[in-house]
Amino acid sequence: MNNKKILVINCGSSSLKYQLFLMPEGINLVKGLIERIGQKDSTIKQEHKDKTIEKKVQVKDHNQAVKVMLEAILNPKDGILKNIKDIDSVAHRVVHGGEKYSEPVIITNEVVNDIENFADLAPLHNPVNLEGIKAAMEQIQSIKHTATFDTSFHQSIPEYAYMYAIPHELYEKFRIRRYGFHGSSHSYVANKALSYCKRAKENTNLITCHLGNGCSITAIAFGKSVDTSMGFTPLEGLVMGTRSGDIDPAIIHYLLDKGYTDKEVIDMLNKKSGLLGVSGLSNDVRDIEKAAKEGNKQAQLALDCFAYRIKKYIGAYSAVMVKVDILVFTGGIGQNSIYMRELIANNLFNIGIHFDKDKNKLIGNHIGIISTDYSPVTVIVIPTDEEKKMAEDSYTLLFQ
Amino acid sequence: MNNKKILVINCGSSSLKYQLFLMPEGINLVKGLIERIGQKDSTIKQEHKDKTIEKKVQVKDHNQAVKVMLEAILNPKDGILKNIKDIDSVAHRVVHGGEKYSEPVIITNEVVNDIENFADLAPLHNPVNLEGIKAAMEQIQSIKHTATFDTSFHQSIPEYAYMYAIPHELYEKFRIRRYGFHGSSHSYVANKALSYCKRAKENTNLITCHLGNGCSITAIAFGKSVDTSMGFTPLEGLVMGTRSGDIDPAIIHYLLDKGYTDKEVIDMLNKKSGLLGVSGLSNDVRDIEKAAKEGNKQAQLALDCFAYRIKKYIGAYSAVMVKVDILVFTGGIGQNSIYMRELIANNLFNIGIHFDKDKNKLIGNHIGIISTDYSPVTVIVIPTDEEKKMAEDSYTLLFQ
Repeated sequence: MNNKKILVINCGSSSLKYQLFLMPEGINLVKGLIERIGQKDSTIKQEHKDKTIEKKVQVKDHNQAVKVMLEAILNPKDGILKNIKDIDSVAHRVVHGGEKYSEPVIITNEVVNDIENFADLAPLHNPVNLEGIKAAMEQIQSIKHTATFDTSFHQSIPEYAYMYAIPHELYEKFRIRRYGFHGSSHSYVANKALSYCKRAKENTNLITCHLGNGCSITAIAFGKSVDTSMGFTPLEGLVMGTRSGDIDPAIIHYLLDKGYTDKEVIDMLNKKSGLLGVSGLSNDVRDIEKAAKEGNKQAQLALDCFAYRIKKYIGAYSAVMVKVDILVFTGGIGQNSIYMRELIANNLFNIGIHFDKDKNKLIGNHIGIISTDYSPVTVIVIPTDEEKKMAEDSYTLLFQ
Repeated sequence: MNNKKILVINCGSSSLKYQLFLMPEGINLVKGLIERIGQKDSTIKQEHKDKTIEKKVQVKDHNQAVKVMLEAILNPKDGILKNIKDIDSVAHRVVHGGEKYSEPVIITNEVVNDIENFADLAPLHNPVNLEGIKAAMEQIQSIKHTATFDTSFHQSIPEYAYMYAIPHELYEKFRIRRYGFHGSSHSYVANKALSYCKRAKENTNLITCHLGNGCSITAIAFGKSVDTSMGFTPLEGLVMGTRSGDIDPAIIHYLLDKGYTDKEVIDMLNKKSGLLGVSGLSNDVRDIEKAAKEGNKQAQLALDCFAYRIKKYIGAYSAVMVKVDILVFTGGIGQNSIYMRELIANNLFNIGIHFDKDKNKLIGNHIGIISTDYSPVTVIVIPTDEEKKMAEDSYTLLFQ
């Protein structure tokens, strides 16, 4: 019997998300979230089947968060495992794998050192990812831990697409280039779309739109990422909840010249821009759609800017891939916003996208085609599951 | 007889270009260039028919440059006019017309004040444009002067395409938005392409690629610009001779964090990036093509990055315009680089562009189609002439 229980850990700056999967079936056994780590009012929420626990706990750092997670999973009353030895492997999410990691890997000392070295490229993420890895490796010993990198799926992007037109020594010295993120999600939904449409990756080109609070879009040919909208950091590309995506880089110079500090500008572009910046209301498409329906013009403008940017990227990738077979929508907005999908995918006949308004009813965790039967490009909604992808990676690496 | 002689003046930071046109025929009577204004070794070069004069002159500022220009035009020996009164109007190039000027205008006091006010948006250009205007209005009196703005053609771009996804108060306070530049060139070649193809602007969508030392690309529907790649400044968009075009804006934050100053970064992006930055060799496509042919990999990469960015923009505009009828190449590279046109326009079948290698032989000032007869999109090379466009604008405003 080859069934394995794989624990997936995803550490944010003040949070730890976890899920336990029964593999290879991909059945979720338990899922939990520890929030406000290092603050006074930390909490844990854990769900399995119909049982949900939610309580305040003292969690001063990620090491303690791993302890709290294991206690919840192993709790005799409302836990799910009897023994820590029932865990067969742990899969960790790591944001940045630099240019070295184009595949998920088993974590060794070398990998740990590399994640630490890449912290310069992802200062908000890699250090905290590493804290989680170290804590989990200490507390869950004698099994293997694996890492799935957000960047690795995009390592197949060709040089002319990942290189910025800036002095080449900046690449040589600092490795400034397009890396791309959301790799697990793009790769997961692309594979799901291929199997749903019964197509082989060898003769299918896809464009995958991951539209959540962060948004990115990827061009996939022969199963490989050939371009993506996020770049050196997750700031570039599409309009997002609070991130600007593409702007004229000289705007930053203009603002610095007006007396803004570098920190103010980068914070503004990351945290006060995007849908929030344009609408002046919210970073949440649901709120903005509601306001737009009620006649709020800035809200409508935010939605229009958001959709227009995506249309442009779909067109760009359509051009460079020579043909496109499948366009995928995923992420919170991609899976749930009927209005936004229509705004994006309608009127793209020129690039073979014939949107079907009548089919565009899906919300939640449902898969389905939303283009006409005669559309050259099949448009499809696929729920993403980055955690399941990480469990699959770990299973493939260790047990297959 | 409605023939008019129109003097066109284009002031750069240390130069003054001029041409005299016989309108409405658009016949060039004389053209000249005063260089290194304010430096020790200023020169003037003037050509008409087969006569070329070239000499050193003392030119301390733009006021004196106008004087030197008039002396050369009126010079009894090798000048072209007998009397300053033979000039019927003067057309000036102004880079920034803000949100107010969507058409060329007759210069009034109000216009002068506005050009001064827009200097904040184009500090390197508007002040020097204005110096030229003031000097010329003082020295060539009792006729009307007109202004053609680089930005005005793009004022028809819809709000969702010109607004950046940054806090809306930055638009309200500083008017930070996409303006677009090279307007005269895009509008001139679009009109030429329409008449060459015997098509009406009402049923023809065009994409115009102005590829010179500065590069930009424009989507034109119903004769109006609906999107363009340059933005708040001429830095955004395509890879250019020394400008980066689009980058992840967080790269700037990264470099500032590494100790670069704001001035170093903006200078680098404007003056040391683009083809020069990637190739490490030159900002001139001719040099880079030569090096690439000789096996220089960085040179080939620079060419590939340059072409790839343009392909993406062509695709983006193809998607949002629903259909495209004509793709125009113009500017020094667009008119002369056989290799670059092929690199860009080949393999774009997915968006209806069927490039014809055998037709792609044009260089210099020649017009011609370089797509196959059955190509849904007609690809055409059109020599640009911004100065003639300015003369046309002046003629239309004053004498038609």
